[in-house]
Amino acid sequence: MISFENDYSEGAHPQVLERLVATNMVQEPGYGSDEYSKQAAQKIREVIECPEAQIRFLVGGTQTNQVVIDSLLTKYEGVIAAETGHVSVHEAGAIEYSGHKVLTIPATDGKISAQAVDDYCQTFYDDANHDHMVFPGMVYISYPTEYGTLYSKDELTRLAEVCHKYEMPLYIDGARLGYGLVSEESDLTIAELAKLCDVFYIGGTKVGALCGEAVVFTKNNEPKHFLTQIKQHGALLAKGRLIGVQFLELFSNNLYFDISRHAVELALKLKAGFQARGYQMYLDSPTNQQFVVLTKTKAAELAQKVRFSPWEDLDAEHQVVRFATSWATTAKNVATLLELI
Amino acid sequence: MISFENDYSEGAHPQVLERLVATNMVQEPGYGSDEYSKQAAQKIREVIECPEAQIRFLVGGTQTNQVVIDSLLTKYEGVIAAETGHVSVHEAGAIEYSGHKVLTIPATDGKISAQAVDDYCQTFYDDANHDHMVFPGMVYISYPTEYGTLYSKDELTRLAEVCHKYEMPLYIDGARLGYGLVSEESDLTIAELAKLCDVFYIGGTKVGALCGEAVVFTKNNEPKHFLTQIKQHGALLAKGRLIGVQFLELFSNNLYFDISRHAVELALKLKAGFQARGYQMYLDSPTNQQFVVLTKTKAAELAQKVRFSPWEDLDAEHQVVRFATSWATTAKNVATLLELI
Amino acid sequence: MISFENDYSEGAHPQVLERLVATNMVQEPGYGSDEYSKQAAQKIREVIECPEAQIRFLVGGTQTNQVVIDSLLTKYEGVIAAETGHVSVHEAGAIEYSGHKVLTIPATDGKISAQAVDDYCQTFYDDANHDHMVFPGMVYISYPTEYGTLYSKDELTRLAEVCHKYEMPLYIDGARLGYGLVSEESDLTIAELAKLCDVFYIGGTKVGALCGEAVVFTKNNEPKHFLTQIKQHGALLAKGRLIGVQFLELFSNNLYFDISRHAVELALKLKAGFQARGYQMYLDSPTNQQFVVLTKTKAAELAQKVRFSPWEDLDAEHQVVRFATSWATTAKNVATLLELI
Amino acid sequence: MISFENDYSEGAHPQVLERLVATNMVQEPGYGSDEYSKQAAQKIREVIECPEAQIRFLVGGTQTNQVVIDSLLTKYEGVIAAETGHVSVHEAGAIEYSGHKVLTIPATDGKISAQAVDDYCQTFYDDANHDHMVFPGMVYISYPTEYGTLYSKDELTRLAEVCHKYEMPLYIDGARLGYGLVSEESDLTIAELAKLCDVFYIGGTKVGALCGEAVVFTKNNEPKHFLTQIKQHGALLAKGRLIGVQFLELFSNNLYFDISRHAVELALKLKAGFQARGYQMYLDSPTNQQFVVLTKTKAAELAQKVRFSPWEDLDAEHQVVRFATSWATTAKNVATLLELI
Repeated sequence: MISFENDYSEGAHPQVLERLVATNMVQEPGYGSDEYSKQAAQKIREVIECPEAQIRFLVGGTQTNQVVIDSLLTKYEGVIAAETGHVSVHEAGAIEYSGHKVLTIPATDGKISAQAVDDYCQTFYDDANHDHMVFPGMVYISYPTEYGTLYSKDELTRLAEVCHKYEMPLYIDGARLGYGLVSEESDLTIAELAKLCDVFYIGGTKVGALCGEAVVFTKNNEPKHFLTQIKQHGALLAKGRLIGVQFLELFSNNLYFDISRHAVELALKLKAGFQARGYQMYLDSPTNQQFVVLTKTKAAELAQKVRFSPWEDLDAEHQVVRFATSWATTAKNVATLLELI
Repeated sequence: MISFENDYSEGAHPQVLERLVATNMVQEPGYGSDEYSKQAAQKIREVIECPEAQIRFLVGGTQTNQVVIDSLLTKYEGVIAAETGHVSVHEAGAIEYSGHKVLTIPATDGKISAQAVDDYCQTFYDDANHDHMVFPGMVYISYPTEYGTLYSKDELTRLAEVCHKYEMPLYIDGARLGYGLVSEESDLTIAELAKLCDVFYIGGTKVGALCGEAVVFTKNNEPKHFLTQIKQHGALLAKGRLIGVQFLELFSNNLYFDISRHAVELALKLKAGFQARGYQMYLDSPTNQQFVVLTKTKAAELAQKVRFSPWEDLDAEHQVVRFATSWATTAKNVATLLELI
Repeated sequence: MISFENDYSEGAHPQVLERLVATNMVQEPGYGSDEYSKQAAQKIREVIECPEAQIRFLVGGTQTNQVVIDSLLTKYEGVIAAETGHVSVHEAGAIEYSGHKVLTIPATDGKISAQAVDDYCQTFYDDANHDHMVFPGMVYISYPTEYGTLYSKDELTRLAEVCHKYEMPLYIDGARLGYGLVSEESDLTIAELAKLCDVFYIGGTKVGALCGEAVVFTKNNEPKHFLTQIKQHGALLAKGRLIGVQFLELFSNNLYFDISRHAVELALKLKAGFQARGYQMYLDSPTNQQFVVLTKTKAAELAQKVRFSPWEDLDAEHQVVRFATSWATTAKNVATLLELI
Repeated sequence: MISFENDYSEGAHPQVLERLVATNMVQEPGYGSDEYSKQAAQKIREVIECPEAQIRFLVGGTQTNQVVIDSLLTKYEGVIAAETGHVSVHEAGAIEYSGHKVLTIPATDGKISAQAVDDYCQTFYDDANHDHMVFPGMVYISYPTEYGTLYSKDELTRLAEVCHKYEMPLYIDGARLGYGLVSEESDLTIAELAKLCDVFYIGGTKVGALCGEAVVFTKNNEPKHFLTQIKQHGALLAKGRLIGVQFLELFSNNLYFDISRHAVELALKLKAGFQARGYQMYLDSPTNQQFVVLTKTKAAELAQKVRFSPWEDLDAEHQVVRFATSWATTAKNVATLLELI
């Protein structure tokens, strides 16, 4: 059965796998001090135009969020996030497990506004009892969001400003970063995004790698003894080369962005196909995740032939489902899907 | 420069890599529910002769220790371990980070005795104030130990008995399990080891895989909602197939043990070579890690040509260093090393 | 300046203090194993008509919430609470510090409904991805609520039913329990409340004691080694007698309820006085906390002469403020306040 | 039965209780911002001759150790302590619960040496793998120790020096501080002790108070938002006055030291009595805890008539037991005890 269930259904992009094969027997030291990780970090620094960026490679997204947030917050601080944010909902309490509250604020189409963050902080500091509450210590956003939507450069700039106003780092979860940046609706380059935030991660797992996320501290602000903190979370990979090699390939010759573009093109084709057949999109996503409103009957019928993700119930008769494309999606599968609906 | 620094200097065994390549574009669901992970688990169940074993694949050793120990202990319990145990020394406090004390007891050549565990527990429960202390909740050992040594079947049996006496699970860290089981000094099969303990893990990272450890609960004792607990630790891999495929290959056609045997044979050749040249071994290891006493001058000189691991100072003039072989070590490199000393 | 700032502005009820003086030099063992604590527990068992209740004395409210919630939840569970609940807002992240998420649901006048809890759990278990989310593990409510309001017997019964449906304990924070139970609007006895919930605490700090809260497990469900868990949280008082003696006095001769009644009578007089003078109450509280809407000008003026608590801004010109009475409030002070407004 | 079981068998010193009674009905704000707490802090600043000291009042010893250690350490650091230290043994894992490892080093008569701390740190930083280990982040000692022994000014000075060398704060657990400082064998004033360490606490629970410990940061080094951190640990007392009033009395007119002297005088009388009757002391304690070697027969017999604490078995026939005096011990009870042995 063909699958649009998510963007991590296949292994790695063939070129990434080839690089792993080609470098396999070279002896390298462990824990990220290998040559490939160093070269990959250097490639990323060049691409993001941030020569002083400090870069670490971690294995997965929830792990990265837990390690980054826990290491940047002091003990009495929490992280502001959209109530629909991944750290709020789908990380099994990994942030709370590390002792920090997720301070949720309302979101629209997965996005939070600078104004909402400002209001939250203003109310907090105006409250005479705020010493009895969790201090807002950083802001978490995802780009693209969990709903495939994008912040504009202007929105991000204003978020960065409010973060600076309250001395909080701005952290961008880029699990699907490539799929956002290559979108025609994006008015941001990766270099601009890097400048606007304090730390972000470049998702590998969903964009061509077997696993791996590149954490980037852009303001010379890597937490002290960060390697030890990674280890303490059980997140330090012995064969750091595994991720280093993959990012080295992804950030050579623009591969990361080229394969992202492929995914978004097919997603838009899929979206257009649904719309042409009269289906309603739940929201207007310009990236690789498309949220479609189906009758429950239709959804059940389609589920016999195609894998996709049920998202939420809209009403008694309709539900929202998600179709995700990736670097690995084929035009043929999209065509097949569109025939089936 | 050739390296005997550790047993994770190369990538994966070529057959493992080939299997990754061969399965790369097949679409599979995430988080360990893929077909490869299921098949790998089944292969392991057969090899360990434990049809009811519950098996999960995690990424790395410290992560595995943290997740397993935290999920098996209640909040007020700690884990008994050798004072030289990996969880005591080299995991950056990952166990304490999850809220549990490591209750250290003395070790000889990396091993703890059933008697020492019994004494510890007896003293604990005899203490009128033990309600003010950390309860011993499980026992952690490594097989082989951090010093390459092995527990005999008899020693393990007695450890298991004392664990049952105090209703504590016995957990075996098998980061290098293959290198222990294939040793001629081992009087244990993997099936016997599985029966004697309550949970163990089969190390992949150091025995042929790019990454990955297989956690095995042998007594129908997997903690409730273990997948959620893995996720909460940030340890759930999206592309679970990455580890599933590797273990499927490692546990097909005896590959895991064959490549382990290769490593141990070369380690013993290396050991014999050192001894033939009059070097003293720090202790008698029958597995892939060999600890040699070198003068500091000799060590410094040799370090110009070969990579190995400084272990500890023996006295003002001598130090202990470790040479590790692996599935990837070549006879040629061993020969080169022996020429150099 | 007279104060209606809170219900913990004075020391202890004089009879409580007398009992402390009278028992002061008797030698007793520590950590709650003293005779007074035993007698106090027995008195409470009688009053709540629950002979098998297990009772522990802790020092303060946030501490009690942290210890009880952490010890009743498994690691992957969170606690459902009103978004205005004390554990959600005013405990500085003490619940998250112990590793658990507070799962907030909307509240009306500080109260959550059985329906809302049911919906939350239903949605959770219906979600195919719920293994990636925090499991709802217990329900926290306060009686009276942070807004002075009360659950009816019927509301509590339905909450208990939904808790049982999902196998979650129902926990009642009774920091101001006395002030709720003696209210004329309460249709519950303490014995009925004890039967309906699984664990609750009887607040001493705000109802006549220098410090101290009595935790009551009503279903033979005290967590294993609970004393050790208390100690682990740093919450075990060496001189347990300090709290035992106080609760012994409070639960002899109905003192706890008599002094609660005094506070509520004065609160209602205060409320009637405000209403008679045309002030609007923010909500209808039948207990010792009264929330009044004042113009900001009036609030600022009054704050020169009386201490009270600013609660929240209602609009640009009005704010909500809280006046609290207690066992120690004098009729004279209430009269003075009513003259001032 | 008379008791020498511990130094917290009675309530509070009568003068302390009187002060509580006298101030009982004065209305004061909560959480330590009351006038009594302010005055008590000021008294302490004067007595310790440290005008810039930052002082907070907490409820108990384990709580204080947990809050202070957790708030001073960064996440990847542990605390160095004697293997016999209270934080290592008798706090039910409260330090590990807050995420930090206790790094134990050998002790003699409860004391650790500057040399041992230096060696530990030197070995740590010399270890090429120290990034994979827990960083030593502070040093914990108790004064007097758990065995009643004392550090000399010289020993403390050298400990302070090695702490500064490695940029670690020196923390002194003064649960029984008074009983140490008034000893004739002490060559330290409280002002000198305050200068030598970075933070210490003045024990109230064991020296005249119902409860309460005064935490003193002597180097303008109180952790940021310390009140919030206290709250987060569930350790913030609503009626802070309870402890403020008690310390105000204890530090007025030298009461704290006078009552400490009383206890030590009786302890030395008790010790002399045992020695005169041929009993062997386990070690030479100059403070209020005396450790005596008894035959097990004798211990069992004596336990019928007097309460004391079994400490540890010395050999098959002998055990070490502890007799503790306090501010409340009477000369008559000491005489009775000496008659009984």
